[in-house]
Amino acid sequence: MLQKFSAYQWDGIDVLRYKEDGSPFRDVTRQVLFHGAPDIPCEWRYFEVGPGGYSTLEHHEHTHWVLILRGSGRCLLGDRIADISFGDRIEIPAWQWHQFRATNNEPLGFLCLVNQARDKVTLPTEADLAELKKDPAIKQFLEEE
Amino acid sequence: MLQKFSAYQWDGIDVLRYKEDGSPFRDVTRQVLFHGAPDIPCEWRYFEVGPGGYSTLEHHEHTHWVLILRGSGRCLLGDRIADISFGDRIEIPAWQWHQFRATNNEPLGFLCLVNQARDKVTLPTEADLAELKKDPAIKQFLEEE
Repeated sequence: MLQKFSAYQWDGIDVLRYKEDGSPFRDVTRQVLFHGAPDIPCEWRYFEVGPGGYSTLEHHEHTHWVLILRGSGRCLLGDRIADISFGDRIEIPAWQWHQFRATNNEPLGFLCLVNQARDKVTLPTEADLAELKKDPAIKQFLEEE
Repeated sequence: MLQKFSAYQWDGIDVLRYKEDGSPFRDVTRQVLFHGAPDIPCEWRYFEVGPGGYSTLEHHEHTHWVLILRGSGRCLLGDRIADISFGDRIEIPAWQWHQFRATNNEPLGFLCLVNQARDKVTLPTEADLAELKKDPAIKQFLEEE
C-alpha cells in the first residue's frame, strides 16, 4: 500500500504527541509510519523537532536506528555532541544517553526504527546529569534554551 | 554511532551491486545502512535506480517497508501503477508483484526494510507475465526501455 507524502505528513497517518508520560521535551511530534508486519516486529516512526525544540534526554535497553529526513540540528550520543543533517545515519546502542535538538532555526526531522517490544525509557537522575555535565560542552548543550 | 551522509552515500558504507543472482534489472545500486542489532532482526537498505533504470520484477513471502528518499519515478504494486516521489511510504505485503522504475530522468532512491531471515525472491514465469500484461498499462510499464 502506498501512502503519499506532503509537507512531512503522510496520507492517513496521524500526527501524535511525542510522549504521554510526562518526560521533559519541547516541540516534538510523532508519526508512526509502520506499526509492524508478520515478519517485521518493529515500528518505524518519524519524529519532528520544531526550531529550538528538543527530544527527551534518555537512555534505555532497546536499540534505535535513526536516519535524518529533514533539516539539521545537533545530537548528544553518549559523551559526544555531533552536528546532524539530512541523510545522516545513527545507531544508538543499548543504554547510550541521547538527545536531539533543532538548534539551527529549522525543523529537525528523523526516522527512528525500534522493536515493537521494548523497555520504557529511563530519565537521568540528578547524579547522572551531574556526571554528564562535567563536560562543559555537554553542559552547554543540555542547558541551551 | 553517527555515519555522515553526502551525495547519497554514507561514510564507511560500501556501494554494492544490487543483486548477484542474475535477476534482470538495470542500473541499480545497494547500500546496507543497518545490518541488524540484538533486538532488531532486520536490514535497512538504500537502493538507488539510475535514470531509465529499473529494479527486478519480483515477488516473495517477506514484507518490504519502503520510503522514497531521492527523486521520483513509478512503481508497480500488485495490479496498480503509482507515481512515487520523495517521502512516499510503501508497504509491500507477501507475494505482491513489485517493480521500481526511475522514469523521470532523475535517480529514484529508496529506503527498504526487511527481516534478516527472508525467502529468496521469485521471478515471474511466462504465464505470470502474460497475466500481468493483460492490463495494457502494466504491459506498457513493464516493457518500457
